[in-house]
Amino acid sequence: MKKIGIIGPNIPNCSKGLYDFGVELGKEIAAPDRVIVCGGRGGFMEAVCRGVKQWPGTFDGQTIGILPEDSDENANPYVDIAIPTGIGLARNLIIINTADIIIAAGGGAGTLSEIAFAWQRYKKVLCIIAFGGSAADLAGRDLDARASGLLIPVTTIDEVKSFL
Amino acid sequence: MKKIGIIGPNIPNCSKGLYDFGVELGKEIAAPDRVIVCGGRGGFMEAVCRGVKQWPGTFDGQTIGILPEDSDENANPYVDIAIPTGIGLARNLIIINTADIIIAAGGGAGTLSEIAFAWQRYKKVLCIIAFGGSAADLAGRDLDARASGLLIPVTTIDEVKSFL
Amino acid sequence: MKKIGIIGPNIPNCSKGLYDFGVELGKEIAAPDRVIVCGGRGGFMEAVCRGVKQWPGTFDGQTIGILPEDSDENANPYVDIAIPTGIGLARNLIIINTADIIIAAGGGAGTLSEIAFAWQRYKKVLCIIAFGGSAADLAGRDLDARASGLLIPVTTIDEVKSFL
Amino acid sequence: MKKIGIIGPNIPNCSKGLYDFGVELGKEIAAPDRVIVCGGRGGFMEAVCRGVKQWPGTFDGQTIGILPEDSDENANPYVDIAIPTGIGLARNLIIINTADIIIAAGGGAGTLSEIAFAWQRYKKVLCIIAFGGSAADLAGRDLDARASGLLIPVTTIDEVKSFL
Repeated sequence: MKKIGIIGPNIPNCSKGLYDFGVELGKEIAAPDRVIVCGGRGGFMEAVCRGVKQWPGTFDGQTIGILPEDSDENANPYVDIAIPTGIGLARNLIIINTADIIIAAGGGAGTLSEIAFAWQRYKKVLCIIAFGGSAADLAGRDLDARASGLLIPVTTIDEVKSFL
Repeated sequence: MKKIGIIGPNIPNCSKGLYDFGVELGKEIAAPDRVIVCGGRGGFMEAVCRGVKQWPGTFDGQTIGILPEDSDENANPYVDIAIPTGIGLARNLIIINTADIIIAAGGGAGTLSEIAFAWQRYKKVLCIIAFGGSAADLAGRDLDARASGLLIPVTTIDEVKSFL
Repeated sequence: MKKIGIIGPNIPNCSKGLYDFGVELGKEIAAPDRVIVCGGRGGFMEAVCRGVKQWPGTFDGQTIGILPEDSDENANPYVDIAIPTGIGLARNLIIINTADIIIAAGGGAGTLSEIAFAWQRYKKVLCIIAFGGSAADLAGRDLDARASGLLIPVTTIDEVKSFL
Repeated sequence: MKKIGIIGPNIPNCSKGLYDFGVELGKEIAAPDRVIVCGGRGGFMEAVCRGVKQWPGTFDGQTIGILPEDSDENANPYVDIAIPTGIGLARNLIIINTADIIIAAGGGAGTLSEIAFAWQRYKKVLCIIAFGGSAADLAGRDLDARASGLLIPVTTIDEVKSFL
């Protein structure tokens, strides 16, 4: 079971363009041996889960939402298995620890924070979808000397798929 | 998807008798619309996951291990989806938050701590497998006035199944 | 610097009698080489902090509140140093990890959960103030075979002081 | 009590030059109404704590170390109050939540991750000590549209002091 981590902005920091991209991405990357691990909330997280569940061969348990709250009432409706952590933003680290590969989108501080944390954990490949912002600026760079070549800038879904 | 939480001792506090009971329990409670959520380590957690995976109709993603460490290297081999939290014993709270129903075994302080935490979260039913110890002593009692009748003492797998 | 952990109910589960006891306790245990580490909220936590700050020789930084929220706005007014963890109820484990000795009061599931967790951490002495309830029932008992004689039932402040 | 958060690399990512700067910084920023809140380990964290304790008017409780482990055995010797969280790297978020102002040093992914997280929490001022690396590159920039002017590049201790 390959675990694909999804990092990106919640409402209202997720543009319509990024949301639509996320739905398309979810549809394209869904597969019988893959689960999606995301923060379980709205915006880009919802978009990718939504896309996955539109895939014809979808199965129950394919989208996992690691939530900040201690209940699942704010999970987006496309999350199959909600995991309410109750540990707030610290739940982002669990997503990084869990994923085999990470797809990050959005240009804000939240995404940037998670990319930098992922770097510390030496994940093999971290695709950064170039939608602008300070997070996207990091794409293609090395954050420090401990690792190299992990942040791959991508602009199309086909590019993302080439890393899965 | 019904999420069944499993709480119980790791090695070396899990007796051979409790381990064997756990394997049998796992085999009996496995079903296409159920996932097991446990702490992902050895002892009773391993036993139940092992039993689930012996069930003929098992599927990938049916056993979820919420691990204390930040890597999955100590997950038991019957965990389908390892979620390495990196938050240590605090991960027990995530199991309680996630589960729809909880099955607790073992008489030690660890199980007791989780039962009391589960009580605070007002889970509807919490089956306590009577294998002795201070945790089992609580079965059938109310811990405080906030809830009532949640801790059900059970001695057979059929009793557990009557609550699922 | 001796760190004294305070565990007990928040409003509304803290009776007037327990609150008054807490204020008196705080006044009596305050000393120049002691800090109080508690959950930083109301009820028994507030009472003990309040008592400490009534002690003539009090100093800034003597009461530390390890809060569940990610901001300090719900800290009680007698907390000198608020530490907003943002990890919810899991912050209780931090109090236990931090304290050199623990004073627990109240008969509810919350206190019970923390006592059991403290036991797992092998703290040397844990005074349990006998105000009834399932938590107080544990006083004087051993929770499992890993430790012994840690849960000391006390009814007076002098008894508590004999352990400091 | 003003809480000054210290963010920076542990051994071996803390150069001799940065360590010496940290000791000097600690000596210069120590004051009777200030506590230092850091990650409690070695490198830059140790350096600043060490400097603080060299200040003539130091007091017990002035340096607080929020540790990743669940015990205090790896705290640096200049930490007055060790708070062993047991939640690993997620403890970094607690430092940010706690501090009134943050001083960040070092050019690695760890510092970068904490700066980005601090930005999300809208802390008023975050001094970034320009010792190179991708973290220092962010100094003077805005990470996203939610806040502005928070990341202040500094090169001297006097500049840091002008923000306290």
